[in-house]
Amino acid sequence: MNKDWIDSVAWNADGLVPAVAQDAASGEVLMLAWMNRESLARTAESGEATYWSRSRGALWKKGETSGHVQRVLEIRLDCDADAVLLRVESVAGIACHTGRRRCFFNRLEGEGGARRWAATDPVLADPGSFRDG
Amino acid sequence: MNKDWIDSVAWNADGLVPAVAQDAASGEVLMLAWMNRESLARTAESGEATYWSRSRGALWKKGETSGHVQRVLEIRLDCDADAVLLRVESVAGIACHTGRRRCFFNRLEGEGGARRWAATDPVLADPGSFRDG
Repeated sequence: MNKDWIDSVAWNADGLVPAVAQDAASGEVLMLAWMNRESLARTAESGEATYWSRSRGALWKKGETSGHVQRVLEIRLDCDADAVLLRVESVAGIACHTGRRRCFFNRLEGEGGARRWAATDPVLADPGSFRDG
Repeated sequence: MNKDWIDSVAWNADGLVPAVAQDAASGEVLMLAWMNRESLARTAESGEATYWSRSRGALWKKGETSGHVQRVLEIRLDCDADAVLLRVESVAGIACHTGRRRCFFNRLEGEGGARRWAATDPVLADPGSFRDG
């Protein structure tokens, strides 16, 4: 099988590349995770997002335990070949392991010395009911 | 000055965090770059995106030479505090150093052994006329 397209990714020293998942319907940026060669190959083959869990040191099929699968409609690579963008359909509408729609739920608010991160998004599902987001 | 909000970012071993820039109007994901503490602080203070150039080892004020400034409307942090999302207004509508609207101009096309990255976006400005995207 032709792996040229995988070889042309600028994998970092750990063999990883950051991957941004964007909801294809809403345009919302859902999460940033990491991929190794195998997770990118599996994602392309299966049409469902598979990442690499740096904390577990293992392939991480998104939604494997939660059902919060991401169907991948498009895979993009940036100009330097060191970042990937997935346009996905977020099944169940929950991408975050905290049970929120997206992982980027903290917004910087305030000015100067009063700046703080404030959670802006509601928890939609009990995070105790799944473990992989 | 209160730096708690900066301290709560999970900076990696190199003191960096990946930052995704999203066009606030179109929703398009424009680029992924990196920030250190100073670039994030400057971005919040100035309201214009400043990244860290890993290749040059220097602060990188987006648009400093090109005029392709990114006005930052919102700064977000993800659940693990290890990725930043900027919602920006992309001045001149060009985010990529190749003169394209966004850096993610390569799309994976084809199936199986015929997969390849194909550039889908037109070059809008002569990349020889600027050097910082």
